[in-house]
Amino acid sequence: MTIFEESLAFHGAHHGKLAVASKVPLNDSHDLALSYTPGVAEVCREIARDSTRARDLTLKNNTIAVVSDGSAILGLGNLGAAAAIPVMEGKAILFKKFADVDAFPICLATQDTEEIIKAVKLIAPVFGGINLEDIAAPRCFEIERRLKEELDIPVVHDDQHGTAVVVLAALINALKVAGLSGDAVKIVINGAGAAGTAVAELILAYGIKNIIVCDTQGAIYKGRPELSEAKSMLADLTNPENISGSLAEIVSGAHVFIGVSVAGALTADMVKTMHVNPVIFAMANPVPEIMPDVAIAAGAFIVATGRSDFANQINNVLAFPGIFRGALDNHVRLITTDMFVQAAKNLAACVTEPSREKIIPGAFDASVVPAVSRAIKE
Amino acid sequence: MTIFEESLAFHGAHHGKLAVASKVPLNDSHDLALSYTPGVAEVCREIARDSTRARDLTLKNNTIAVVSDGSAILGLGNLGAAAAIPVMEGKAILFKKFADVDAFPICLATQDTEEIIKAVKLIAPVFGGINLEDIAAPRCFEIERRLKEELDIPVVHDDQHGTAVVVLAALINALKVAGLSGDAVKIVINGAGAAGTAVAELILAYGIKNIIVCDTQGAIYKGRPELSEAKSMLADLTNPENISGSLAEIVSGAHVFIGVSVAGALTADMVKTMHVNPVIFAMANPVPEIMPDVAIAAGAFIVATGRSDFANQINNVLAFPGIFRGALDNHVRLITTDMFVQAAKNLAACVTEPSREKIIPGAFDASVVPAVSRAIKE
Repeated sequence: MTIFEESLAFHGAHHGKLAVASKVPLNDSHDLALSYTPGVAEVCREIARDSTRARDLTLKNNTIAVVSDGSAILGLGNLGAAAAIPVMEGKAILFKKFADVDAFPICLATQDTEEIIKAVKLIAPVFGGINLEDIAAPRCFEIERRLKEELDIPVVHDDQHGTAVVVLAALINALKVAGLSGDAVKIVINGAGAAGTAVAELILAYGIKNIIVCDTQGAIYKGRPELSEAKSMLADLTNPENISGSLAEIVSGAHVFIGVSVAGALTADMVKTMHVNPVIFAMANPVPEIMPDVAIAAGAFIVATGRSDFANQINNVLAFPGIFRGALDNHVRLITTDMFVQAAKNLAACVTEPSREKIIPGAFDASVVPAVSRAIKE
Repeated sequence: MTIFEESLAFHGAHHGKLAVASKVPLNDSHDLALSYTPGVAEVCREIARDSTRARDLTLKNNTIAVVSDGSAILGLGNLGAAAAIPVMEGKAILFKKFADVDAFPICLATQDTEEIIKAVKLIAPVFGGINLEDIAAPRCFEIERRLKEELDIPVVHDDQHGTAVVVLAALINALKVAGLSGDAVKIVINGAGAAGTAVAELILAYGIKNIIVCDTQGAIYKGRPELSEAKSMLADLTNPENISGSLAEIVSGAHVFIGVSVAGALTADMVKTMHVNPVIFAMANPVPEIMPDVAIAAGAFIVATGRSDFANQINNVLAFPGIFRGALDNHVRLITTDMFVQAAKNLAACVTEPSREKIIPGAFDASVVPAVSRAIKE
């Protein structure tokens, strides 16, 4: 039985993965009078007097929404709201398991940017934060930007920032193991969607300037015809020498390849043209841009993927639980790039002795959530 | 310390009452691969092929939303979305406690009818049912009607139908104890909002025809000037002799008074003008239309209130958990009036020997939820 068949049977047996639970006893009429009528009336009046008290007196204290429109589910593409539920529900139980954050899945029956923004704003009162998930680029950029402006709770598109934090953490340790310093290093990112864009921005914020982002047409550079708004911005921020060319041309001489693209995008021949002892993050799921054994045979020094069956798994679960744990605990309204950089540094430091096979902690490392959450505070 | 002070302190100590919980183990990387990536991809693909499978494979199986706009919170009025959270959260834990239904509170930052309808439709994919709560009349009627038409999951405005089911159950037993038969009985309902309207409709559906509904201007009758649409409909359905007059005039000779109005609306003098041995349901909260001791002294035979500190508490918690338990278990898409009548009959039958002091079961009677849920099936 494959993991796919096993998972389908498992979901059918459990009828879903998430339940709710009462935090308080309900065993007699006094319990009812405290949690519900008549006692609860006073809690309502208190919040009506001062709406910020909802933060202390209700589930808003520890609850976030995991919101998707189903337009970019995992690597599967646009399958719609219903098909997104198993992923958002899975994310919710990971939030609970790893960081004791109460997360609830919201899958929206629309893929219209304005309707998504409106819906999230309308349901925001009960939530202490919004985790956007699996929403296609470029609409995800606009949705996150607007919600950050218009809501008074933290909003994070995890496919962007969760991914970027874990990649930067892995990069920090990989450069350390490889003996490379930021000033000298040339990084090529393949993939200019939500993840690739956020990874580029966070690495820039960390201080590495020589980054070139490629999409299916090759390097993104200032003046390339028909660039979208998001890619124009990338062209302005990256590619300092404004180089054009195919991925094969661009990776030549690079120290680091970061793939957030598709299976097979990086060949052994391309790896052979890179700087000696290159670092390869091949994160396409489920099949990476290049298989680790092929990359190593072609000269790669360090290889990371998104998969749990190889060393160095770059997994968002290392970031999102701690990010919201920190935001909720520290009442952070707006999570900044500086906080994400610090989270990546703290996450990298969870590996006390980084090595070629261990540049990033494992998902069950108990030091991870406290390290990441410490970074998310004003 | 009053129950209000105690409840406020209790909510502050617990920081809310509802949490989420994982139904599945997450202890190693195989667990992660089953519940999340990569295994979950197959569950997404399965639902993309057939969206009805979301019902079996996700939390939609057992999860409902408790939705409010905060416009009619308990007896407190329009306090807005944030102030509604403690009530919706309380309702959610009651759903879990009494019927193992996973309910999640959704408090909407709008009181616009169309925006409420739109928001509920957009978030519907993850839910197996919608419990509308504490939404002011008359907009609650339009919202419920439209959502019942436009969604493929059951939608119930509990302030209407939950209340009506419990009132009808109590009425069935009260008439039995009082030796009255439906044909002879005259019922006056004071209050023509959501609850009063639904109570009138359900008693009519049960077969009692001589009902007069009063509002603050007295009896609602065909031709009364400036009747709203909802009240015009009530005038058409009730008051068969089309009588006008004040509440004091209308209750004269009535067998039953049902108050869903305000404290003090029924006086001892009015009770004295009613039919001998009248039945009084004084459900205004927290202070009833008439206090039980005053009503008894004025000749009342049976008195019920909404309060737990008197006999015969008419409490929605007797209805809503079982209604949604039945709807989810039996995949009921549309809950009909006939089902609500049957639910009331089943609920009444939970009291094996009804008496003046016991016309309705208590909230913790374990026979209640199975009895009510049995009625909610096609």
